[in-house]
Amino acid sequence: MFNNILIIGCGLIGSSILRASISKKISKNIYVFEKSKKNIHFIKKINKKIRFIKKIDHQVSDMDLILLCTHISQYKNIIKSLQKYVSSKNLISDTGSTKRNIEKLINENKNLKDIFILSHPIAGSEVSGPEFGNKNLFRDKWCIILKNKDKSAKRLKKIERFWKKIGSKIIFMNSIDHDKIFSITSHLPHLIAYNLIKTAIDFQKKNKKNVIKYSAGGLRDFSRTAASNEIMWRDIFFGNSDNIIDSINMFIKNLNKFKRLIKRKSNKNILKILKNSKKVRKQIIELKQDISKPNFGRDIF
Amino acid sequence: MFNNILIIGCGLIGSSILRASISKKISKNIYVFEKSKKNIHFIKKINKKIRFIKKIDHQVSDMDLILLCTHISQYKNIIKSLQKYVSSKNLISDTGSTKRNIEKLINENKNLKDIFILSHPIAGSEVSGPEFGNKNLFRDKWCIILKNKDKSAKRLKKIERFWKKIGSKIIFMNSIDHDKIFSITSHLPHLIAYNLIKTAIDFQKKNKKNVIKYSAGGLRDFSRTAASNEIMWRDIFFGNSDNIIDSINMFIKNLNKFKRLIKRKSNKNILKILKNSKKVRKQIIELKQDISKPNFGRDIF
Repeated sequence: MFNNILIIGCGLIGSSILRASISKKISKNIYVFEKSKKNIHFIKKINKKIRFIKKIDHQVSDMDLILLCTHISQYKNIIKSLQKYVSSKNLISDTGSTKRNIEKLINENKNLKDIFILSHPIAGSEVSGPEFGNKNLFRDKWCIILKNKDKSAKRLKKIERFWKKIGSKIIFMNSIDHDKIFSITSHLPHLIAYNLIKTAIDFQKKNKKNVIKYSAGGLRDFSRTAASNEIMWRDIFFGNSDNIIDSINMFIKNLNKFKRLIKRKSNKNILKILKNSKKVRKQIIELKQDISKPNFGRDIF
Repeated sequence: MFNNILIIGCGLIGSSILRASISKKISKNIYVFEKSKKNIHFIKKINKKIRFIKKIDHQVSDMDLILLCTHISQYKNIIKSLQKYVSSKNLISDTGSTKRNIEKLINENKNLKDIFILSHPIAGSEVSGPEFGNKNLFRDKWCIILKNKDKSAKRLKKIERFWKKIGSKIIFMNSIDHDKIFSITSHLPHLIAYNLIKTAIDFQKKNKKNVIKYSAGGLRDFSRTAASNEIMWRDIFFGNSDNIIDSINMFIKNLNKFKRLIKRKSNKNILKILKNSKKVRKQIIELKQDISKPNFGRDIF
C-alpha cells in the first residue's frame, strides 16, 4: 500500500499501529521516531526491520504516510518541524482524542492544511507504552476520520483504506461534532473516574478510615479508568475544555436531581432512571461496544 | 457445621451461598424460601437435595442458621413473619448492603435483637438471578460482620466461622462506620454510573446525536455498573440516603474544583490529581481488590 510510513511517537497506540502495519504488510518500510530509550528498547523487539529516525528532517519528505501518535501537547513542536520538509506528495494523519484544537494548529500552516487529515481511533487502555501494544487493538473499533472542504477525496480515501486495512470501522465527522460527542462518551467518564478517586482520598483523610481496602464494591472499577495516562488526559481536558465543562454542568444538574429524588424517596422516578440505564447497557452490547459477559471483579472462576 | 440452614431469597447472592454451602458441606440439610418460579427452576438444577419451604412458619424454628438474601425492602415483612417462630436457639444473618436501617428494624423486635447478626459480603455483579450464582463468589472477599454489645461472642463466632468456611475474609465493624465507608466505596460509584448514563441519554436527546454508538471510549465501562439490579440499588439509595447525600456533595465540590482547574489550565494541580489516582489504583491492586491485567474493552486478543 505504501513504500514508506513514519510513526511519530511509539507508545501504546503508535506501537499497535506499527504491529498492525507489519502484520497487514501495509508498507515496504516502516520508520519510527521515538525519543524514549526505554520505548525504543521494546520496539526493537517487535521486528528487526523497523527503522528509526533520530530527527525530523529532510528524510520525512520521502514518507507516504506520517502518523502522529504522541501526546497532543507535543503536536505544536512536531508540526513546526514537519512543515519545513513536507509537500503535497506526503500525507499526514494522527490519533489524538481532541480535534478542534489540532485543526486550528494545522490551519495556521498553509503547507499542512491540505495534506493533514485528522483521525481518531477509538481504542486504548489504562496502560501505556509500546510493551502493551497489540496488532488487534483497532479491530472492529471505530476510527473517526475528520472531513472538511479542505481535504481532497483522494487523500480521504487513502486514509480510509489505511485504517480499514488495520481493522477499523470508519466514520466521517467534522471536528465540532467529534469534540462534542467524545466529551460525553469519553472525556466526561474519565474525568468522573478521576473525580471519584479524588473524593475517596478526601473522604479517607477526613474520616480517618481506610476506604481503599473496601474498594471491591464499585470504586475498584472506576480506579482502572482513573489509572490512565496523566499527560494524555491533561491534554484532553485542556484541549476540549468548553465541551467538557458543558458536560460537567449537565452531570451536576442530574446529580442534584438524583439527590432530591433520594431525599423525597421518589420511588417511581428513581426506578425509571435505573431501568433506563439498563436499557442503554443493552444497546451498548447490541452495538458491540462491549461484551455481555458479566464482571465479578477479580478472576474467581 | 449445621443441621439445617435456611436461605430466604435465592438470587445471585443466595444461590452463591447455597452453592458454596453444598460444596463446603456446611449443613446436613439446606432449605430455600424463594417466591419466583423462574428462580426455583434454576435452583432445582443445582442440587436435588435442596428442600424448598413455601411459607415462613413453625418450620423455621428448627433452622440453625437463617440467612436473609432478599432485597432490603422485603426485610420488614420477612422479619414480621420470622419473629413469631424464632427463639434463642436460632441464629439469623443477612447479606444486605445498608446496615443502620436494618439494625433499627431488628431492634424493634426484642426476639430478634440477640439472635440476628448482620453481615455484608462485599461481592456481586451487574447481573442478578440464581443462574449466575457461583460457589466461589465469596472467596478471598471481605465479609463485614456487624458487631455491637447486644451480640454474644458465641453467636458472633458462629457467623464468623460460617463466612470463613465459604471463603470470606472477616472484618468486624459497627453499622455507623459500615454505612459511611460503603457510601463512598460502593454506593456513590453506582450512583455516579447511573448518573453518567442519564447524562448521556439527556445529551443524546438534546443534541440529536447518537452517542451510545461511540461508548467504547469510556462510557461503556460505566454502563456495566449502571446495569445493576434496580430494586437492590433503589433500596440502597433510600436506605443510606444521608451518607450518600454527603458523598454526592463532596463529589460535586470536587467537580467544581476540577472545572476551575480546567478553565484556568492549571497544569500542576491537574497533574497532581491524575497522578494521585494512579497511586490509588496501585494500592487497590496491591490490596488484591482488583487484578492488574489491563482492560482493552471487548476481547481482542
